[in-house]
Amino acid sequence: MLRVGAERDDAAQAGTVVTPSAEFPPLGDEERAALGRIGERWRGPRRADDLPVDPTLGRHEHHPAPTRFGRLAPIDMFTVAQPGELVATGAADLPGNRAGRSVARVRRTLIGPPLSSASVLYERMRKLVALPVLSSDLLSSVAYGPEAMLAVLVLAGSAALGLALPLAAVLVVLMVAVGLSYRQTIPAYPHGAGSYIVAGDNLGRTPGLAAAAGLMLDYVLTVSVSIAAGVHAVTSALPGLGRWTVPLGVLVIAVLLAGNLRGVRTAGNIFVLPTYAFVVVLLVVLAVGYAKAASRGFAPLPPPSAPAAEGLGLLLVLRAFSSGAVSMTGIEAVSNAVPAFRPTEWRNARTTLGWMVAMLVTLFAGLIGLIHLDGLAPRADETLLSQLGRVTFPSGPGYAILQATTALILLLAANTAFNDFPRLLFFMARDGHAPRRFLHMGDRLAFSNGLVALALTAAVVFVAFGGHTERLIPLYAVGVFLAFTLSQTGMVVHWRRRRGPGWRRRLAVNAVGATLSGLVLLTAAVAKFAEGAWVVVLAVPLLVLLFRRIHGHYDRLHRALALHSPPSAPPAECDELPQQVRHLVVVPVARLNRASLRALAYATSLGRPTLAVHLAPAQDEADRFRDQWRAWGDHLKLETIVSPYRSVIGPLAHYLEALHAASPDLTLTVIVPEVVLRRRRYRLLHSRAEQRLRTALRALPGVVVTSVPVHVSR
Amino acid sequence: MLRVGAERDDAAQAGTVVTPSAEFPPLGDEERAALGRIGERWRGPRRADDLPVDPTLGRHEHHPAPTRFGRLAPIDMFTVAQPGELVATGAADLPGNRAGRSVARVRRTLIGPPLSSASVLYERMRKLVALPVLSSDLLSSVAYGPEAMLAVLVLAGSAALGLALPLAAVLVVLMVAVGLSYRQTIPAYPHGAGSYIVAGDNLGRTPGLAAAAGLMLDYVLTVSVSIAAGVHAVTSALPGLGRWTVPLGVLVIAVLLAGNLRGVRTAGNIFVLPTYAFVVVLLVVLAVGYAKAASRGFAPLPPPSAPAAEGLGLLLVLRAFSSGAVSMTGIEAVSNAVPAFRPTEWRNARTTLGWMVAMLVTLFAGLIGLIHLDGLAPRADETLLSQLGRVTFPSGPGYAILQATTALILLLAANTAFNDFPRLLFFMARDGHAPRRFLHMGDRLAFSNGLVALALTAAVVFVAFGGHTERLIPLYAVGVFLAFTLSQTGMVVHWRRRRGPGWRRRLAVNAVGATLSGLVLLTAAVAKFAEGAWVVVLAVPLLVLLFRRIHGHYDRLHRALALHSPPSAPPAECDELPQQVRHLVVVPVARLNRASLRALAYATSLGRPTLAVHLAPAQDEADRFRDQWRAWGDHLKLETIVSPYRSVIGPLAHYLEALHAASPDLTLTVIVPEVVLRRRRYRLLHSRAEQRLRTALRALPGVVVTSVPVHVSR
Repeated sequence: MLRVGAERDDAAQAGTVVTPSAEFPPLGDEERAALGRIGERWRGPRRADDLPVDPTLGRHEHHPAPTRFGRLAPIDMFTVAQPGELVATGAADLPGNRAGRSVARVRRTLIGPPLSSASVLYERMRKLVALPVLSSDLLSSVAYGPEAMLAVLVLAGSAALGLALPLAAVLVVLMVAVGLSYRQTIPAYPHGAGSYIVAGDNLGRTPGLAAAAGLMLDYVLTVSVSIAAGVHAVTSALPGLGRWTVPLGVLVIAVLLAGNLRGVRTAGNIFVLPTYAFVVVLLVVLAVGYAKAASRGFAPLPPPSAPAAEGLGLLLVLRAFSSGAVSMTGIEAVSNAVPAFRPTEWRNARTTLGWMVAMLVTLFAGLIGLIHLDGLAPRADETLLSQLGRVTFPSGPGYAILQATTALILLLAANTAFNDFPRLLFFMARDGHAPRRFLHMGDRLAFSNGLVALALTAAVVFVAFGGHTERLIPLYAVGVFLAFTLSQTGMVVHWRRRRGPGWRRRLAVNAVGATLSGLVLLTAAVAKFAEGAWVVVLAVPLLVLLFRRIHGHYDRLHRALALHSPPSAPPAECDELPQQVRHLVVVPVARLNRASLRALAYATSLGRPTLAVHLAPAQDEADRFRDQWRAWGDHLKLETIVSPYRSVIGPLAHYLEALHAASPDLTLTVIVPEVVLRRRRYRLLHSRAEQRLRTALRALPGVVVTSVPVHVSR
Repeated sequence: MLRVGAERDDAAQAGTVVTPSAEFPPLGDEERAALGRIGERWRGPRRADDLPVDPTLGRHEHHPAPTRFGRLAPIDMFTVAQPGELVATGAADLPGNRAGRSVARVRRTLIGPPLSSASVLYERMRKLVALPVLSSDLLSSVAYGPEAMLAVLVLAGSAALGLALPLAAVLVVLMVAVGLSYRQTIPAYPHGAGSYIVAGDNLGRTPGLAAAAGLMLDYVLTVSVSIAAGVHAVTSALPGLGRWTVPLGVLVIAVLLAGNLRGVRTAGNIFVLPTYAFVVVLLVVLAVGYAKAASRGFAPLPPPSAPAAEGLGLLLVLRAFSSGAVSMTGIEAVSNAVPAFRPTEWRNARTTLGWMVAMLVTLFAGLIGLIHLDGLAPRADETLLSQLGRVTFPSGPGYAILQATTALILLLAANTAFNDFPRLLFFMARDGHAPRRFLHMGDRLAFSNGLVALALTAAVVFVAFGGHTERLIPLYAVGVFLAFTLSQTGMVVHWRRRRGPGWRRRLAVNAVGATLSGLVLLTAAVAKFAEGAWVVVLAVPLLVLLFRRIHGHYDRLHRALALHSPPSAPPAECDELPQQVRHLVVVPVARLNRASLRALAYATSLGRPTLAVHLAPAQDEADRFRDQWRAWGDHLKLETIVSPYRSVIGPLAHYLEALHAASPDLTLTVIVPEVVLRRRRYRLLHSRAEQRLRTALRALPGVVVTSVPVHVSR
């Protein structure tokens, strides 16, 4: 199990479901008991029901009136749910300042109004919607997978192209094996059968993290490769756009990001038509092509002769094979997205996976066969699919439709990654392996942070590689086959542990899938190492290390803040009970004006021992200040510190530390007047001593910093 | 008068002296009286002499021991001066964290240990040191001034070069007139007779600011032009360095900055030798040259004939005249730096000014005459000074020494600006016309902020103009002659107002100086307008506007914070007396752990009405939290807010604003637990909700924010 601390097990039980409450894990039994023990010893002024203002805001009859900062009083932003509970309305989400509200309005216009947490259940996909959304990655790979394989084979001369048929047969076996393997995984993990969870659950933390790292790299590359190929298809048809490749790709990533920030349903609807259109057009191509081939008795046409650039060795065949295997990337999409299906989730997901694999095998095998029959070979200036289109549709709009749908599905294939990447980060963040901010669901119930992270990373990769598909392809497939292998190995362990009816057969199916995937992984890593796979081979262990360090940090933090932990904190910070807090209030005063007098009044009103401190650059200035202090009435004890080197923050921080060292169980409350300027540009004219003091005091134990604001509107 | 608020007049009286106390202006009478009135009404716990710790740190016998964060307890950083007063030692200036201390040590190694405020008097210059420091700008201009004038004249053919003699005579008259004029100004303003102060005092604020703007532009250009010319001299001698012009210049600016940050005495010592060497070498050149000319009966040699590119019109003569006038830039340096002289400051300064003008006139007139006698004309590939050197020293090291000292004095001339620019900014900041940070004297009693500002601006100008002297020259001289004119017009007004013995004669001297300077200003602005002077003509009014706006801001702020002002503040911020403060303590709690319990304990220990607030993304999470709250013992009133759109900061800020709107005289103290991580890199893993909440609450009146830190060391 990958959880942070044993007390979160109950959360983990329902934990493969994506909910907004994941940010608020409940307390474990041990912590709850410790809480009760602390509560019993709590001494303080008894619960004051006589607050000076009604906390439910309901008792005061109040007409909304503009406040001093020019907006309506915010009482109407809340409704009373029950005694002691309010519900915020949408207006309460808007920032307080005018600029922030304008930004929020633009944002709402772009990605829609916020969705309530209660609507999370309704953002589910029907199978007919889920199929195109989740399969665009997988199916679009047939647009470049066969070509990538043949492009390697043709290096050994056009005769070597004949090897495509046996290689394709092996790949079809692989597809079916992996598909069957995943089909078994989905019902076993009905709340999301991602490789990270399956491998982590059954093989341990590090294999789980390795699978996650592989998948994350693969998702980033999916976006970059698909968009590179899609943009290239567009620029091939419209050569004038060629020099805009990089901005176009970045624009598409931005549009995908915006679409996904709007939420899953809207995003799904966009993708239905192009995917089905692509499948239908390809089926027409196959039907027409095979009909023509049948008319000549399935006699293959000879491919154009090409000189051999390399010998036909084992390494070349392996490279061709692993290039062809990129057609399988995306097959894991369904298993990660089980919770996005309508109930019964696992059954719908399994059915969808079956359709997807069937379509993949049909298209992939059909295309390889037809290419062989038509005697086509990869060419630098035209894609194989385009050549096939010209052969199939010598006239009419057929060719244009094929190219358009190909471009479209490639651009949209990237969307699968936008579905899966943030979900993977959510699972990792819940276990403490990724920053907790990836737990947060945005306005529209999408994991905004994860979406933005993916878009940024993919855009950086896209720009760094100049949008060239062929340079990105060698990095691809290592990550995803690592995840396949680990996930299916995990399922083998799963069946061996759980047994259950027919477990031997299931184990065998997963074992075959794992073995085949592992072989492809090895092949890809070795054969393409020098071409770029080394980046992934290097990045996976580094990412695993990073995830483990993140987990270590959260784990230590959790233990340090846990209620039942032995107190290892500085003495002044062990005060869990009010009666243990011993106060000294310190007010640094630079000069006597309305702001510092307000801070002094606030400090005095707390009724605790109070000390004022003044820092002077020289003796005579200190004397002058003491004289002013007496003119005021000498109401508080004043300590002046002469700082002959004219620095203020350093000596003040050291003085407070010295006070604290002299009496370590004391809680020092430092009260700083803070002049708040309404116009940001004027802040440059001020030294922001308050912020610098706060930074200097952060490191000191037992020092509480209080800012007393004085607003200056002009 | 240019002071902020009438109550600062007493400060202004001694105000032309540069002291570290300028950052702490004393209270005016009116404010002092208001302070007493407020003090009389002050009600609070009476002055507690029984603080829980000794504020002078002396009573506790204490052995220095490493604190939790691994450094020695800081009690030994302070010594007791008298009851209620400590003096910080040098160690108290060091930052608390290890990285900060390392940076401070490197800095001290580079620019020396800090100097105490008490040593400000001793960093004064003897006349023999002041002369080279302050005259390097003025004297170095003879290296490019005569050449700039002749380069314009030669455009009208070699015959026009004869006009150089009458123009030089006019310029000598101008130099003597302006020199006499400044000689009179120094004793009249013995604490610093800068054009800003003289013009502002006598002509009003805007002329003073215009003079300041002109001088500031001139200082920046002095640095850029001198370093460009100096680097060019070096790269002429060593052509291999030619392509490093820009990095070399920036490096020299950085070295000058470091030297000046070390403080005025060290900076002065660096510059003594090169300046005197330059003067001596030039005098030798003149002596040898005139001896040779005497041997042929002072018969001038004919200049090489050059074709006329332009007609010899009035505009050309004016351009030549204003180009020659750049030889006078830097004459005002002494009057700005009077307080840097040893006592009696004004007398030493006046003597130094006399020497400087005498040397300038000798060198300038001597060079023009010798160039005429030797029949030299400006050439593109060699400077006039270099030609003169070759004629004078046909063999031997004389030529090399001349070129080296010329290059050196040009590089060092920029130092005059490093003396004057920060001082000018100090005077302006004291009057509220520049950011207050320019009042602060750094570790070494230098105005570090002003030095850094000058170095940055000059470096930007230098890089922007690619280090080309000839492109920078047209911008030069307009600013400085604007300052000359305004300063001397101010002196005319001064004498007319003050009268005193011989005032008519003094007025006449200054009037002549003002008239002549004004004519040169007009000439330069008109004749060089298209060549670049328009930048300065445009920048001066913009800078004046900027200075006035800065002054307006400080003035409004001063009035808003003044004690005697009518309260126009939000109701909750008018509390100048402790008994007026009505408290409500609010503790936002996200989850129950050691950090939040410590914040609750701290809040309860204040003994004021306290309300805990929890924000939940959904109803069930709110229920779960209330259940935990009851398990703890329900010691404080809890309000839960369901935020169905999952944002936290916005609804919380609006809720607090609503509470405040319901009871506007209430002071809300928001107590936020803040987990402080020792390692900065881990902060990325946290959402910094505390900071975001603080930012959101800044704008709200009457909301005090308190951070209760919990330190996690790992």
